[in-house]
Order: sequence, then C-alpha cells, then structure tokens
Amino acid sequence: MAHVPGDRAPGTGEDARVARTRADVARAALKVLTVEGSDAVTHARVAELAGYSKTTLYTHWPARVDLIVLALDALGELPHHDRTGDLRTDIVGELQAFRGGITEMRLDRILTGMAQWASVEEMREIRDKINTSGQGQMRAMLGEFLDGVELEAALSMLTGVVACPSIMFGTLPNDDVIAAAVDIVLRSADPGKSSKR
Amino acid sequence: MAHVPGDRAPGTGEDARVARTRADVARAALKVLTVEGSDAVTHARVAELAGYSKTTLYTHWPARVDLIVLALDALGELPHHDRTGDLRTDIVGELQAFRGGITEMRLDRILTGMAQWASVEEMREIRDKINTSGQGQMRAMLGEFLDGVELEAALSMLTGVVACPSIMFGTLPNDDVIAAAVDIVLRSADPGKSSKR
Repeated sequence: MAHVPGDRAPGTGEDARVARTRADVARAALKVLTVEGSDAVTHARVAELAGYSKTTLYTHWPARVDLIVLALDALGELPHHDRTGDLRTDIVGELQAFRGGITEMRLDRILTGMAQWASVEEMREIRDKINTSGQGQMRAMLGEFLDGVELEAALSMLTGVVACPSIMFGTLPNDDVIAAAVDIVLRSADPGKSSKR
Repeated sequence: MAHVPGDRAPGTGEDARVARTRADVARAALKVLTVEGSDAVTHARVAELAGYSKTTLYTHWPARVDLIVLALDALGELPHHDRTGDLRTDIVGELQAFRGGITEMRLDRILTGMAQWASVEEMREIRDKINTSGQGQMRAMLGEFLDGVELEAALSMLTGVVACPSIMFGTLPNDDVIAAAVDIVLRSADPGKSSKR
C-alpha cells in the first residue's frame, strides 16, 4: 500500500481507487441509512449494496459508526427555499423545503440516525454541524425580528412543526398547519398586526 | 410446556415463571435502550444484563424489534405536570415535565428508538399510542383556546421546543426558553393581551 508521490499521473492508481471506493461505499451506506434505517447499516449490508467485500469495508471503516459517518459524507446539500424577500412567504417556503427533504431525502431517518450514534464524539460533531447548517437559513430569517430566548424558542418551535409529527407519528404537516405555525410566531412578535390570512 | 388449568395454585409454576422472565427481560431491554441506545438492544446484550440465556430470549422474542416492543412494556407512566388551573403555569409545567423525562427516563432515546423501528407495523402502533398519550395533556390544555390547524401547529411547536434541541444537539431548553415558547403561543392566540412576564 506504500505510495511514492509522483509515481503516477494525478487522479489515477491507488489514490483514485481509494477515493472511488470511498464514494461508492458512502453512497451505498447513505442509501441503506435512508431507505432501511440506521439499524440496517451493517458492514454486510453496505458491502452487498456497494459491490465490495466485507473485508474491504472493515479495513477502511472498522466500526458501524464509521459507516454512518461516511454515509453523511454523501448527503450533499440540504434543501432550502430560495428567498423572495417576503418574510412570511420565505419562512413558509423554508418549512416546506424541510418537509420535502423528509419525503425525498428521508431527513427524518438522518436526524434519528445521527441522534442514535451521538454517544460517539466524532458523530456528535458531525450531527451538530449538519443540524446547525440545516437550521441556518431559518435562524437568519427569524433573527430579523426576534432575538435571545424568543429566537431560540421560535427556531425549535418551527423546526418542531415539521420534525415532531414526522418522528413521532410518521406523518407530515399540510400547508395549512405550516402556515398556522408561521402565523403564530409572526402574530406573536407583532401583536398589533393581524394575520395576513 | 403444556399447562393444565387448575393444576397449580394461581401465580405459581410455569405461568408465574414466564411472567417473571418477561418482566426481568423487559426491564433489562429498557435499560439497554435508554442507557446505551437502540442499537445496543441485541439478544446478547439484553440476555447478559437480565441474567438469562440468549436461547431463552430467542425463544420468546425472536427478533430485535420484539425486544424493543418488550422494553416499552416496562416504560411505565410518562411524566406529567399536576395542573394548578392557571393555563400558562400548567403549559410551562408540562413542558418542564417533558424535559425532566428526557433527563431521567431518556425519553429522547425512546422517541428516536421507536422512530427507527417504525417500519414494523406492531412497533408503529405502539409508537403512535405512546406518543399520543405523551401529548394528551398538552393537547387538552391547548384545546381550551385553540382548535383545527392552530391546535395541531401549536402542539407540534411546543413539543418541538423540548424535543428538537434534544434530538438535534443533545441539549435541553432552559426555563426562559420554555417560557418564551409558551408566551409566543399564548400571545398569538390573544394578541390584545400583553405577556404576563
């Protein structure tokens, strides 16, 4: 496995092969995590789906949590709403984008899978990074009219309107429930102003 | 294993032995689930902790999901706040009780563990029942001044103010964040009335 720099053209040979294996296994691990759930993420199952030997997987990623960490490498961009400038429209749109991410990317399984492995320090750091990034746009929008404990409360509340039904009951809020949640926050912040609905 | 009714005094012999085994294994499975996480709930680990053989566990509970279902049998009453009659105090108290349940009973691991196994129909039913029961008191209180989509939104939002930080970041809201969340909902429902804070 010794590698002498410059003994091959860039992007070929050992390095390229390892990178390709890594990408293949990451995609397979993410697929198992999101389609079958985190409990199904085993060396045997991921190896089978990726088309590599279990030995190869154990060599590079000895623990099951390594496969979960690797899967998150393949997650890519989280879905966000393109802002229009109208705050109510944009907050509703961001929650709808989160809801779409649960349907299309199974972000609910990503969330609970990351939570389950959070006793591992490396996983905890990745979880915090992914979840902070996921909430970033919503935090910025709410920060335009809230701060301090009200901002923290509203951020968890609006995340919860999509995440809680999904994690607790396997259901998703319809557009009316999402709009009602956003109006509760907006109306509360500006009690003199009536709802736009 | 044949059992002739009436051949033993009630509560002794085979039936009592099975009931005792079941209770012992349920407690051990719940402990593994809440202390070590749902991934650790294996026949080997639960048998070890309960002091029974793996064969005994496989005979009665052949699949890992059976052990999770069994663990939930031992969960007992979910924590709730004793109502005082003052709505704001009681909603805040109920959220603090939920927060206490995460600290003391690791309800966050129960929640994510149930979500992870929800592809199994039996588990889905138990999850829905436990979560519906968990939210029952909050739903009744919010139902005193909200209905329809506003009630559904507020219920998920207030659940989320405790559940989301816990599942996403392993943190819990302090009393000020909980109070802010409750005031957002109360102020929004009665925009003419200023916050009691």
